[in-house]
Amino acid sequence: MNKVLILGAGQLARMMELAGTPLNLDVKAFDVRTDKVVSPIYPDRIYGDLKDGITNADVITAEFEHVAHDVLAECELSNKLFPTSNAIKIGGDRRLEKALLKSCNVSNANHYFINNKGDFDKALKCLSLPIIFKTALDGYDGKGQWRLKSTDDADVIWQDMADFLTASQTSVEQGIVAEQMVPFDREVSLVGVRRINGDTAVYPLTENHHTNGILSVSVAATVNSQLQQQAGAVFKALADKLNYVGVLAIEFFQVGEQLLVNEIAPRVHNSGHWTQQGADTCQFENHLRAICDLPLGSTALIRPTAMINIIGEDSVPNEVLAIPSATIHWYNKGKRVGRKMGHINVSGDTELQLAEHLQTLAKILDKKAYPDLIDFAKNYLEKLS
Amino acid sequence: MNKVLILGAGQLARMMELAGTPLNLDVKAFDVRTDKVVSPIYPDRIYGDLKDGITNADVITAEFEHVAHDVLAECELSNKLFPTSNAIKIGGDRRLEKALLKSCNVSNANHYFINNKGDFDKALKCLSLPIIFKTALDGYDGKGQWRLKSTDDADVIWQDMADFLTASQTSVEQGIVAEQMVPFDREVSLVGVRRINGDTAVYPLTENHHTNGILSVSVAATVNSQLQQQAGAVFKALADKLNYVGVLAIEFFQVGEQLLVNEIAPRVHNSGHWTQQGADTCQFENHLRAICDLPLGSTALIRPTAMINIIGEDSVPNEVLAIPSATIHWYNKGKRVGRKMGHINVSGDTELQLAEHLQTLAKILDKKAYPDLIDFAKNYLEKLS
Repeated sequence: MNKVLILGAGQLARMMELAGTPLNLDVKAFDVRTDKVVSPIYPDRIYGDLKDGITNADVITAEFEHVAHDVLAECELSNKLFPTSNAIKIGGDRRLEKALLKSCNVSNANHYFINNKGDFDKALKCLSLPIIFKTALDGYDGKGQWRLKSTDDADVIWQDMADFLTASQTSVEQGIVAEQMVPFDREVSLVGVRRINGDTAVYPLTENHHTNGILSVSVAATVNSQLQQQAGAVFKALADKLNYVGVLAIEFFQVGEQLLVNEIAPRVHNSGHWTQQGADTCQFENHLRAICDLPLGSTALIRPTAMINIIGEDSVPNEVLAIPSATIHWYNKGKRVGRKMGHINVSGDTELQLAEHLQTLAKILDKKAYPDLIDFAKNYLEKLS
Repeated sequence: MNKVLILGAGQLARMMELAGTPLNLDVKAFDVRTDKVVSPIYPDRIYGDLKDGITNADVITAEFEHVAHDVLAECELSNKLFPTSNAIKIGGDRRLEKALLKSCNVSNANHYFINNKGDFDKALKCLSLPIIFKTALDGYDGKGQWRLKSTDDADVIWQDMADFLTASQTSVEQGIVAEQMVPFDREVSLVGVRRINGDTAVYPLTENHHTNGILSVSVAATVNSQLQQQAGAVFKALADKLNYVGVLAIEFFQVGEQLLVNEIAPRVHNSGHWTQQGADTCQFENHLRAICDLPLGSTALIRPTAMINIIGEDSVPNEVLAIPSATIHWYNKGKRVGRKMGHINVSGDTELQLAEHLQTLAKILDKKAYPDLIDFAKNYLEKLS
């Protein structure tokens, strides 16, 4: 069982191929834009169409949750798809996600489903301001969201949403989920993995920072054991409920000592990229191990590590490489504003050393391209002092 | 400067491609058996012949020292070859190697060059028994060696060597180097790297164990600072003398507190594979950084790490993956007795934990395929207690 087909041929597939090759796993990817199976490292190398890909694979998985449902159905028929299409769809539809959380009795923000003006008016009555409205399908990196802070803006926002709903051409009916905005202290995420036999392992909780709605920095360092336990219990409940196989990421809002689930991602996750340098086994290898029914690798933290996303830039100054422990991971993608082009991992023997490396990094990188990094690094260092 | 051509398409080229891809380096390899340029990860993907490879590359390097001299000459003409053909040739000819050591005043075993019976007789007079005879060219992994322990065997051994010299079909004249065998305490090696601008960095000294003449285990853990300094000075002397660019490995015999050079390898080295999990930057990435004129990566030890070669076997029990920190690196090669097929890296937060992981590993692996590992692991643990 060593031939893997990934639905989606982006950077996550690429990093899975890089992680799987030393294990002699043969990793290919189905590029949904071209309907061709390719090597994620050599995307111009074509291995046929989806049918060929399914036939040639021992196991099939996905690098993103917005895979067309007919593709998922075709893969599931082969009995090779891990996780299930059900789990993947839940990650791509906030309504299903909320239903899953409810069925597992997992805390999350108060919310209301909206399909028409009547629902919208009810949502405004049920929830208190501010409210964030999110598209049920296809939203990511802060796209497809509206924020309502004052009822004065309700009509304008509703009109915009109504236009959006009318224009939607999704195969499943589009909808909106209204969520009461949570005054959270910080955002954290948990990346965990579950094997076919039910074994699970979770990485340390990761603290996440966003810039313009896109993840900019993730840090894995000191872990609060109470929070870690809380997050681990949520992971176990959701993963077991879904009979999940592979890596599953859960984003949380931390409010005081409580974690509320923001969203789940049925795949390897950007907030887990630090595991390439900071953990015993990286998330990409562990996902492959899980779906290929190999023993899970240890998820222990080796040393405090941070990941910095490279967004919209196709180069960084060479001095970055001179920072001890700094590692650059490029995705070999064409430059585009707001696009995730690569990431930098940086570690320290201690959290203080990590903070110092982050300071150095923030000084080297272009302030325009990494607008929050200097402040983040400064605050991080101050917090430790 | 991101297109790299490697002379030789074996596992070292493969691991360089895996290390270089995240840096967006385009790594190709010239397969000397087929005279074609290939992707080391996808060796059936062909990118033309040597001439094409040289034209398309920004820099050229080698994964082994026994590259045909006309190939080296053709590459050198392009001014893209790092290290120089001179440095590569020295690694492939023990006579040149000994001359280099002499010119740098670096300690090594007493030796004598042999081309005929007269030289052989003189060697027996100059050196005391036991003597090891090594072919000047093409010897590796204990092949092409004779050991003389008693003068009674001299005639038989000479006849065998004479036959060997007659049969040799090397483009450069073959020869024999007689070396007085050194009663060493252990074998260690130093992997270091030098950039075009003269910057150097060395990894911690690695202790090496051989089984049937082939490296079986390398351990990087506690470092004796006096020895590290001694080895580092030898590295600096040799690398500077050669105006070396890239990773250079030096094998030493340790006799008491003194290091004698056994041999040098002008390339990434099997005894440096532990750096993939145990060091800030692995040797493969650092070699690429050096030849692409990027800043060298830190060579600091992250945690005690051992490498175990997988020789002649194309599988290991899955339980190996359940050992925390155990990582398997397969080379995607056909199974053959005595062939290096892959390696396992295993680490520990402490040396004691590493020793425990090694014990577990030795129990899981087949005793016939890893005959010395149980004893090695036992002794290693006892040494720490």
